[in-house]
Amino acid sequence: MTDRNTRHKTAMEKLKSHVDDKVAQANEERGQLLVFTGNGKGKTTAAWGTITRALGYGYKVGVIQFIKGLWECGERERLAEDANLEVHAMTTGFTWDTQNRDADTAACQAVWQEAKRLMRDESVYLVVLDELTYMVKFGYLPLEEVMTALEGRPEEQTVIITGRNANREIVACADTVTEMTEIRHGFNHGLKARRGIDF
Amino acid sequence: MTDRNTRHKTAMEKLKSHVDDKVAQANEERGQLLVFTGNGKGKTTAAWGTITRALGYGYKVGVIQFIKGLWECGERERLAEDANLEVHAMTTGFTWDTQNRDADTAACQAVWQEAKRLMRDESVYLVVLDELTYMVKFGYLPLEEVMTALEGRPEEQTVIITGRNANREIVACADTVTEMTEIRHGFNHGLKARRGIDF
Repeated sequence: MTDRNTRHKTAMEKLKSHVDDKVAQANEERGQLLVFTGNGKGKTTAAWGTITRALGYGYKVGVIQFIKGLWECGERERLAEDANLEVHAMTTGFTWDTQNRDADTAACQAVWQEAKRLMRDESVYLVVLDELTYMVKFGYLPLEEVMTALEGRPEEQTVIITGRNANREIVACADTVTEMTEIRHGFNHGLKARRGIDF
Repeated sequence: MTDRNTRHKTAMEKLKSHVDDKVAQANEERGQLLVFTGNGKGKTTAAWGTITRALGYGYKVGVIQFIKGLWECGERERLAEDANLEVHAMTTGFTWDTQNRDADTAACQAVWQEAKRLMRDESVYLVVLDELTYMVKFGYLPLEEVMTALEGRPEEQTVIITGRNANREIVACADTVTEMTEIRHGFNHGLKARRGIDF
């Protein structure tokens, strides 16, 4: 065995031992609260990756789309025929297209009722609250209502919240938080949003 | 209209105008190079979200899994019956489980041949090179080969590269780069990886 191979083997053994230790220590099993926040691309996309994953095992999934309701959406089409998937979208679309605060609040509250129902349903394994952070920021949805629903949900249920500027209180009670930081975005240097990739 | 509603309308109009301007300026259409890097959760998951999205429009997708080949994988199961999806996984699994540099290099090179074929195929809309960054870092795959394949690919083809510590040269030629930064990860405070959520 060459020196390089020996060094590689030692490094990999050390890494494996470290990973094995961490796996052994991670023994608490329950539903989690995941937050995908930050200004970069990949928050909603990562939520849809998780949805696909959960559906792959036959789990029931509920999705509330708080903003992108009127957009064409390939991932929703791809999974639409799945009986285990339930999607509710705010019908006003992007809030800056409507510019009507009362209509937005009413539309938000309507889908929030579906969210609350899903978060009381023990048969639902995963609930995605896509772009919820803006609803709280704009004052369409009181933070206390969100916290109460999160705290009262079934123990085995995982919830994913996405959106920029995640509220401090939500981050504080999350199990896993990833900040998707934009290093570069094609859109900002002239690249048109692409079908099947960006939407 | 209340003051609050007026302020909201003005703010939303300003935001809409800003977004409209950016959309108007973004008129270049072609395949892109996306990089999901960083130490946080969501890189591979965002890639699978994009895969689901592209399949939703009936596009052909090729996936090379450079590390997680032997893992149970809900998203792959969910989409397995899709004739437009082609997945190749490195058969040695996690590299620190094998601790054999020569075997890892050979396994990497075998799937890399599939990657190169996909990146020459004009009918493939999206190619995902999952965890490729480690292959370059470990020296299993020369960076020059990766750059040559990226530069020579069809103009309409999008490539997603995932993995920590993305190589500087790859980042430099990417259109969109997101750094998934770990703010918190349940695994590090005792939460077991969860079926249908983490894998």
